[in-house]
Amino acid sequence: MNPSSYSETALLDFLQRGQSDINPLLSSYFPEEDVAIPLYQAVRYSLFAGGKYLRSNLCLAACASVGGMREAALPFAAALELVHTYSLVHDDLPAMDNDDLRRGRPTNHKVYGEATAILVGDALLTEAFTLIAQKGVASGVAPETVIKAICELGEGAGLNGMVLGQFLDMLSEKKITMNEKEMAIVHQNKTGALIVAAVRIGAMVGNATPEQMLHLTEYAKRIGLAFQIADDILDVSGEEKELGKKVGQDQAQKKWTYPRLIGLEKSIDLANQLSEEAIDALDGLGENADHLRWIACFAVKRKK
Amino acid sequence: MNPSSYSETALLDFLQRGQSDINPLLSSYFPEEDVAIPLYQAVRYSLFAGGKYLRSNLCLAACASVGGMREAALPFAAALELVHTYSLVHDDLPAMDNDDLRRGRPTNHKVYGEATAILVGDALLTEAFTLIAQKGVASGVAPETVIKAICELGEGAGLNGMVLGQFLDMLSEKKITMNEKEMAIVHQNKTGALIVAAVRIGAMVGNATPEQMLHLTEYAKRIGLAFQIADDILDVSGEEKELGKKVGQDQAQKKWTYPRLIGLEKSIDLANQLSEEAIDALDGLGENADHLRWIACFAVKRKK
Repeated sequence: MNPSSYSETALLDFLQRGQSDINPLLSSYFPEEDVAIPLYQAVRYSLFAGGKYLRSNLCLAACASVGGMREAALPFAAALELVHTYSLVHDDLPAMDNDDLRRGRPTNHKVYGEATAILVGDALLTEAFTLIAQKGVASGVAPETVIKAICELGEGAGLNGMVLGQFLDMLSEKKITMNEKEMAIVHQNKTGALIVAAVRIGAMVGNATPEQMLHLTEYAKRIGLAFQIADDILDVSGEEKELGKKVGQDQAQKKWTYPRLIGLEKSIDLANQLSEEAIDALDGLGENADHLRWIACFAVKRKK
Repeated sequence: MNPSSYSETALLDFLQRGQSDINPLLSSYFPEEDVAIPLYQAVRYSLFAGGKYLRSNLCLAACASVGGMREAALPFAAALELVHTYSLVHDDLPAMDNDDLRRGRPTNHKVYGEATAILVGDALLTEAFTLIAQKGVASGVAPETVIKAICELGEGAGLNGMVLGQFLDMLSEKKITMNEKEMAIVHQNKTGALIVAAVRIGAMVGNATPEQMLHLTEYAKRIGLAFQIADDILDVSGEEKELGKKVGQDQAQKKWTYPRLIGLEKSIDLANQLSEEAIDALDGLGENADHLRWIACFAVKRKK
């Protein structure tokens, strides 16, 4: 198994396996019986909507890349999925990106109303931390590492990470000019910060050495940006049916994107370059890191 | 010092001391210099708006009641203030309670817009957990206890606590009838759950015995409900100027409140009874618990 062995089918199978491992945990955490309370139903609507489970799989793959136990990383991976889903539900709100479609279905607020969607996001975010605190130690991770992982998750998701990125992204819509450096800062925070957290948390749980952590962080930074550029590209040239969301939204909302700033061709080149650099950053890691290499390929080759 | 020694001035001095101890921590966590980024400014606007610091002081007082070190409880108390502030910012949103005034000033979304207010709430909630993870162990608390406290905070704030309460409260507006038991469930979750978490976290950090924890939990449940009933009463009979928010909002929004359900007189009686029961629950604890007794008095005697 090496990057040249990459195929989208094999990668999607791998992501699917992560999803199959995580979903029972999430499903028992938000039990079906509780759908009697419509809030639970609204949570499950967005949580089990067929996402790619990218962040959770990055966490699992990073743990495996340093020889860690997959079982130990599962609660952390599940928590990352919760944080990612919360961010989508809130970003889709009318006051934010005002999106009607997500993963091929009406967005949470379209189905359950705005107030419930706000609460769904709040609940998912809160339960991400709760889930780690409840299950982290029980899954065999040292208490000190569980705390470090919570810290990492909070820093990636919070005021100096994802929330800042979403804020800067909103601000950027009003800007008349923007340069590549400014846009990289938006993307690094909006998408990159949680992806970096996902990889680093997996590495922590797997007891990575400081040097391994360094390499994995470099890897994560590069694929984080590559994924966002690819997202921008797909918004221009993707297929609505495959994406499960409307295309051309960035342009309609006057968002600053890589294709808008440097053109489509150069954007594709840059994404490919970042993907290669990410794979290079894993040089010190052996075959255990192959799934991470596949994900770096997938970042730029995917159609959704 | 005992409950009969209660005076509002002394209690407000005590709350003020908690605020003075917590604010430097919060202020260095959200540094003033960063107001360059308007998101930080928006966070500080709601965080330093002169709240009562009730939940954080409950945490500090509960820690003291079992002989714990005040210093150890500070990061946890600060985190409770963050969670409480997030809940106010989100509850005030147009899609939720649609309030224009909070603590005597325009609400966050009135000043910074709805999108920023959503992000402010998201950031405050995330940073609450991050702050505990960053500073809990450094303040002298065992890693296992830090994790238990994070769990307690998440359970109080999350899908089976405060978020559920807010959801049930919204649902209740549409109900034609409601009984006392149903309303108690709303209140226990909406206000009570985080108050119970505040007291229990303080007790944990102070290394309470299981028996002490039991008594403190009983105390917390009662004052949680007493505070909410008092809130309902103040919305009917309070002074807008003292409260810093509009009165009569519950009626305008057709909310089910204790005064609406059982009348003003009986509501006052019930709040007083709960306050006394809360004080009784502290029987096994000595003078160290006097501040908790004061807070139980304040719950029903306050004018704001």
